[in-house]
Amino acid sequence: MAAFMYSQSLQSVKVYSGGHLFSSRRRYPSPFLKKNAPCIVSACIPKLQKELSLASPEIGMLLDSVKWDDKGLAVAIAQNVDTGAILMQGFVNRDALATTISSRKATFYSRSRSQLWTKGETSMNFINIHDVFLDCDRDSIIYLGTPDGPTCHTGAETCYYTSAFDFLKDSQVGESKMALTTLYLLESTISQRKAEIAEPQIGKPSWTKRLLTDDKLLCSKIREEADELCRTLEEKEDKSRTASEMADVLYHAMVLLGLRGVKAEEVLQVLRQRFSKSGVEEKESRKK
Amino acid sequence: MAAFMYSQSLQSVKVYSGGHLFSSRRRYPSPFLKKNAPCIVSACIPKLQKELSLASPEIGMLLDSVKWDDKGLAVAIAQNVDTGAILMQGFVNRDALATTISSRKATFYSRSRSQLWTKGETSMNFINIHDVFLDCDRDSIIYLGTPDGPTCHTGAETCYYTSAFDFLKDSQVGESKMALTTLYLLESTISQRKAEIAEPQIGKPSWTKRLLTDDKLLCSKIREEADELCRTLEEKEDKSRTASEMADVLYHAMVLLGLRGVKAEEVLQVLRQRFSKSGVEEKESRKK
Repeated sequence: MAAFMYSQSLQSVKVYSGGHLFSSRRRYPSPFLKKNAPCIVSACIPKLQKELSLASPEIGMLLDSVKWDDKGLAVAIAQNVDTGAILMQGFVNRDALATTISSRKATFYSRSRSQLWTKGETSMNFINIHDVFLDCDRDSIIYLGTPDGPTCHTGAETCYYTSAFDFLKDSQVGESKMALTTLYLLESTISQRKAEIAEPQIGKPSWTKRLLTDDKLLCSKIREEADELCRTLEEKEDKSRTASEMADVLYHAMVLLGLRGVKAEEVLQVLRQRFSKSGVEEKESRKK
Repeated sequence: MAAFMYSQSLQSVKVYSGGHLFSSRRRYPSPFLKKNAPCIVSACIPKLQKELSLASPEIGMLLDSVKWDDKGLAVAIAQNVDTGAILMQGFVNRDALATTISSRKATFYSRSRSQLWTKGETSMNFINIHDVFLDCDRDSIIYLGTPDGPTCHTGAETCYYTSAFDFLKDSQVGESKMALTTLYLLESTISQRKAEIAEPQIGKPSWTKRLLTDDKLLCSKIREEADELCRTLEEKEDKSRTASEMADVLYHAMVLLGLRGVKAEEVLQVLRQRFSKSGVEEKESRKK
């Protein structure tokens, strides 16, 4: 039955831009897609889009519920749905938010040019919207989406690459250090260690470098850590042991990804494509 | 030598609030801490704090570099350094930003009350700052930190729990669906499946539920997926295979975490405590 469910779900899935990642040696049951689930997130986009136009009463009601400031604006923050990275922040007025919802491309209101602009309209690096969230005060908005390419006009992945604490050490601005959360800081560090291997005069010996240069050691560690993670369940060990062993699994697997030149973001894209539920399905499950 | 490096680094580490997670069955080499590395992220906080006061010329220069709006404000977005979740968004003036940097507690300027407020001053749910980032336009700021508890005044983890797309389906607001990125949406779904097991009349059969109720199956899948991930390296398979197998490892390991009641956030805390580098060290490595 599981296999049937999976093939069912595949038929209704519109594969996303990273769809080549979907090619799987072994198809396995999709744990989240129910037999009659209409679609997963990306597959739902056309449906919702078709239903909504800028003039629809639903969008009007939504726009009325936002607490616009004295200039008719609210803050909008674009966030990468897979990595959580904050890509950029702008302002929106009613038209910008309505356009974003209708077109599924992150759109803002330019305060300097007094006009709407859709991120990507010149660079083609659109931010494709998966959902839009309002905060408790209803004056701040998250655009949760997938970027087609670097978001910043400078070519950086995100607009946030200036660390205040770096500045305070050096009293100068300009060096690039991205605002990375833990997993991506680890990824970045592994990537640096990999680069250092090519230039032996740079850096010092490190465990990561050893793993990066010894496939046999790396693979034996990954298998060992996975085994130890399982044993925390099998031997009913303390919960903190599970967290600790999972950190080991994640670290060593991230080194393998780094070695192969695979980004954590690509892995999360695969996870999303396989496992994300549509808003409809999620809603249905909450009603029950 | 690796063992020596690790014990060195441990001595200089100030264990963070989640420090109990540090207890490890087996100490292993810290790949990122160099022999003479002064500290890791959390250990550096007191040092920087001591060096900076509100009146320091460095803070003055930093504040001068911000592009304040016509009301003397800029946008500040608080983000969880481990999960990437956007916790809240507020505005800052010069004093609020200076106070945040000096106190390492996220501080904002309340436009309605015309005064500074430090998140947590009444709830004690402070947001402890790890770094502060400015965007390319220098009018938008990220407070990257760890929250002591739920950030929203409603008790929700973050202030963003109202989906516009849910609203557009129902024409009503109020239901809670957090703005979750891929890994945390998966975590939430696993948690729902776990809850459904206790009430068999709810939901349908799913692969996740099978794994949640069969430790032997779950552990055999985790070991098998870890092995398949390794084989993509050993057998020089296509990169997309690595991403796909890593997604399998991550999914099954997340089910184990869910079963044990361990949050991905706790795992990332462990990773950060073990592997994060100080700004100082990162800077040094870039200079080389």
